[in-house]
Amino acid sequence: MAREKKRLAELAALVEGELVGDPEVLIGGVADFDSAGEGEITFVADLKRGARLDECRASAIIVPTALTEIIGSAIRVRNPYLAVARIHSLFVAEPFVATGIDVRAVVGHDCHISAEVAISPLVYLGNRVKLGQRVTLHPGVVVYDDAVIGDDVVLYANVTIGQGCRIGNRVTIHSGAVIGSDGFGYATDGSGHHVKRPQVGVVQIDDDVEVGANTCIDRATFGKTWIKRGAKIDNLVQLGHNVVIGEDALLVAQVGVAGSTSTGNNVVIGGQVGLGGHIHLGDRVMIAAKSGVHNNLEPGAIVAGIPAIPHKTWLRSSAAYAKLPEMVRELRELKRKVAELSLAMEPGEDNSPGNNE
Amino acid sequence: MAREKKRLAELAALVEGELVGDPEVLIGGVADFDSAGEGEITFVADLKRGARLDECRASAIIVPTALTEIIGSAIRVRNPYLAVARIHSLFVAEPFVATGIDVRAVVGHDCHISAEVAISPLVYLGNRVKLGQRVTLHPGVVVYDDAVIGDDVVLYANVTIGQGCRIGNRVTIHSGAVIGSDGFGYATDGSGHHVKRPQVGVVQIDDDVEVGANTCIDRATFGKTWIKRGAKIDNLVQLGHNVVIGEDALLVAQVGVAGSTSTGNNVVIGGQVGLGGHIHLGDRVMIAAKSGVHNNLEPGAIVAGIPAIPHKTWLRSSAAYAKLPEMVRELRELKRKVAELSLAMEPGEDNSPGNNE
Amino acid sequence: MAREKKRLAELAALVEGELVGDPEVLIGGVADFDSAGEGEITFVADLKRGARLDECRASAIIVPTALTEIIGSAIRVRNPYLAVARIHSLFVAEPFVATGIDVRAVVGHDCHISAEVAISPLVYLGNRVKLGQRVTLHPGVVVYDDAVIGDDVVLYANVTIGQGCRIGNRVTIHSGAVIGSDGFGYATDGSGHHVKRPQVGVVQIDDDVEVGANTCIDRATFGKTWIKRGAKIDNLVQLGHNVVIGEDALLVAQVGVAGSTSTGNNVVIGGQVGLGGHIHLGDRVMIAAKSGVHNNLEPGAIVAGIPAIPHKTWLRSSAAYAKLPEMVRELRELKRKVAELSLAMEPGEDNSPGNNE
Repeated sequence: MAREKKRLAELAALVEGELVGDPEVLIGGVADFDSAGEGEITFVADLKRGARLDECRASAIIVPTALTEIIGSAIRVRNPYLAVARIHSLFVAEPFVATGIDVRAVVGHDCHISAEVAISPLVYLGNRVKLGQRVTLHPGVVVYDDAVIGDDVVLYANVTIGQGCRIGNRVTIHSGAVIGSDGFGYATDGSGHHVKRPQVGVVQIDDDVEVGANTCIDRATFGKTWIKRGAKIDNLVQLGHNVVIGEDALLVAQVGVAGSTSTGNNVVIGGQVGLGGHIHLGDRVMIAAKSGVHNNLEPGAIVAGIPAIPHKTWLRSSAAYAKLPEMVRELRELKRKVAELSLAMEPGEDNSPGNNE
Repeated sequence: MAREKKRLAELAALVEGELVGDPEVLIGGVADFDSAGEGEITFVADLKRGARLDECRASAIIVPTALTEIIGSAIRVRNPYLAVARIHSLFVAEPFVATGIDVRAVVGHDCHISAEVAISPLVYLGNRVKLGQRVTLHPGVVVYDDAVIGDDVVLYANVTIGQGCRIGNRVTIHSGAVIGSDGFGYATDGSGHHVKRPQVGVVQIDDDVEVGANTCIDRATFGKTWIKRGAKIDNLVQLGHNVVIGEDALLVAQVGVAGSTSTGNNVVIGGQVGLGGHIHLGDRVMIAAKSGVHNNLEPGAIVAGIPAIPHKTWLRSSAAYAKLPEMVRELRELKRKVAELSLAMEPGEDNSPGNNE
Repeated sequence: MAREKKRLAELAALVEGELVGDPEVLIGGVADFDSAGEGEITFVADLKRGARLDECRASAIIVPTALTEIIGSAIRVRNPYLAVARIHSLFVAEPFVATGIDVRAVVGHDCHISAEVAISPLVYLGNRVKLGQRVTLHPGVVVYDDAVIGDDVVLYANVTIGQGCRIGNRVTIHSGAVIGSDGFGYATDGSGHHVKRPQVGVVQIDDDVEVGANTCIDRATFGKTWIKRGAKIDNLVQLGHNVVIGEDALLVAQVGVAGSTSTGNNVVIGGQVGLGGHIHLGDRVMIAAKSGVHNNLEPGAIVAGIPAIPHKTWLRSSAAYAKLPEMVRELRELKRKVAELSLAMEPGEDNSPGNNE
């Protein structure tokens, strides 16, 4: 695709960076360090990589402020990742093309569908569904009755949006994700049979959220399961009924969150972490990958382990864990020595040092 | 939806509870404590919540037997969760509507489909498929050749039922679940290449089972992978070939069970637990979230950890784990002291206490 | 299905095994030990099972070389699993039936589709898609624009192949798998908002790879995420952007691999293992189930635990872990004893042993 080219000075202004070299260099796209060439901009995020700047064939480069020995044209910024994200987004942005509703899609009755949409073949919309402006529904998407979807939403192939669920603006949901499956709620009778508790709530996803492929977000038992603005959720994540995920949260792949747990804003939850039910994580909590948390965490807490403990402690404890066999040996040896000493010091014993002369 | 209202006395009888207050109060639905209002019943499951009974705006409330200071009308029961599950199910039950087979569904040859079914657009049925009474197939469901599905089954969007698999009565399977994918079985040749072992068995799911969204249940290598009556399986669970899950089992989200492992009845397996292959869990085994089990477990065992150990031991071991760095310090200090003592006690040494006077 | 029967001598030759008994026995299929009957061949993989050879009703049996007391006809081989895989594959192989493109499939423009394909109803192909010979696409499969698929590929129900992704020959992908979802890449601005980094690379899957149900493989940020020849990936696995999986790797269910991590050939990664980002595993690395790895591993390393340590150490450490409460007690007891001893040895104290006489 022939993209419009931008002057390097424009790009530097966009990211509020310091321009080095030729402001008139024309840039038509972004590529990674090793493959970038003429007419492209690339980036180095850390200084080690900067050592190889002479190997770079790109027309310009985004570098961290601390990097001073620059070859050729560059933009110096505090956060190269952020700058490249913004510049790259500029180049790859596609204008929305309103293809309308394909005749091979299935649309229920009483739907409110904006004029500007792109609904693929093999999409299914139930009854009374509302779709905002510039919504893109890929093949195999199923939207159940009474769901409400905002503007500029993209649902990739085979995504399911459950009955009555609400999706905000600028939300992207990747293939196979299931929004609004039933929560896992049962009551057990005297014979050990599990009686299903009806799950009559919904899922609400606020603006600017992204949900990964094959992720599952259960509807609430009552009320709503709630993903707040700007949260980013990776693939194969499980969020139980009535979970609340705070603004700008990051949930890495395969995280599981049990029912009724809530988080503050800007939490970072590593891959394969499990959160128990009915707990709350404060703002800015960070949890290392594979940890298990079953207690509330204060704002700013950084934890690791199963069960999770302060990350600094965990680093030392896990180092000690690898030395446990040695500790067992040392402890045994100490016990032996202390027993010898005790014996040696018993009064009236021939082998006590006091009697030795 | 205008539900039929029920007298409180009827509801109390349904759950074998003790009626307190006005038996003639009319109830039209169930809501949670904070949102319930006029004409609704709600519940408190624990006594702490009971302290706020005066804030309740519901027309009646389900309370535990131990709660004695009741304001207004109530039903007292041993297990409020069970009572609310039964009463709520009564109110939300929808009569089955036999919409038949939508013309936009694809149906193979020689299928046996009961008269009363609801098959959505964009459903695919292979050849020789059998569907019982009151089966509901949502859009995107794919049922392969020779599968057999019982009565009152609901398959949500994009569920796959593999060739020859058998689904019992009153089974619900949530969106994206895959029943009957191939087991992960290979034999490795002398060059390190993996030769696929054909997976020719099926999956059999018995009556009253519920399977969560995007869960995968592999077909058997030979014979059947078998989910027995009443088992409830959460989202994103993985069950390998030839696994047997006992009656009334509860498997929480993201559990993984390796091939040929079996469980007794009424087991409870916490979220993200992994079970190794070829082991057996006895009846009523309980496994804490995130544990890893690779040995047989006796009936009634309660375990935790990786590898799993008795839960009580694990509680103490995991508490000690957080103190390992301290133990390392203490052990080092003890070694130093014991070395000093040993030295002090060596005969003929000036600093031995025996020579001190 | 009436399969062509094979003489036992033929089967022995196929697997380079030693024939015992009647070379003319006719075999029509493979079954497991307990259900195999007349006209079938079965196998025992270990000698313990061999003790029950007299209970076997199969017409022939595949046994390990070490098993010498054979009843009836048999094939003796070094690796019975490998022999049974090959013989069974011979019997279950189905000739490809080119049913063409079903009229209820949706095909974009400028696709290159080989003459011999089997494309089911409700399949969606985007524009400029290329399909090789003998490709089978099951219902609900979605192949995005510009994807390239080789020969003899099978995509089961509801598989998604993302834009521009490349699938080699003889690749099988099970239901619900998502190939080419966006990588989880964001840069965070000064307000804590996450700005998406465009994910413009692809996924490349080489020949003879098998991918499990509901597994997700993210496209690269730049370049490609790459699954090399012969790798076998189980269900519900998550592979991040720019991951490289080496030849003949085995990844068991629910494994998660963070971005830019690569493996050598013939690695074996147990169920629910997590690999951190930007690390490399050497050839033949083996990782026990549920481990967490965040450092490079040398070729041939065998590790376990979170964080992963050498497997042998882990066995001893995890055994010691269960005894930590006891160690805590012993350590406390030792401290007490050493304190007593120290006190006893202080000069001039009445209770020192040296003053005791």
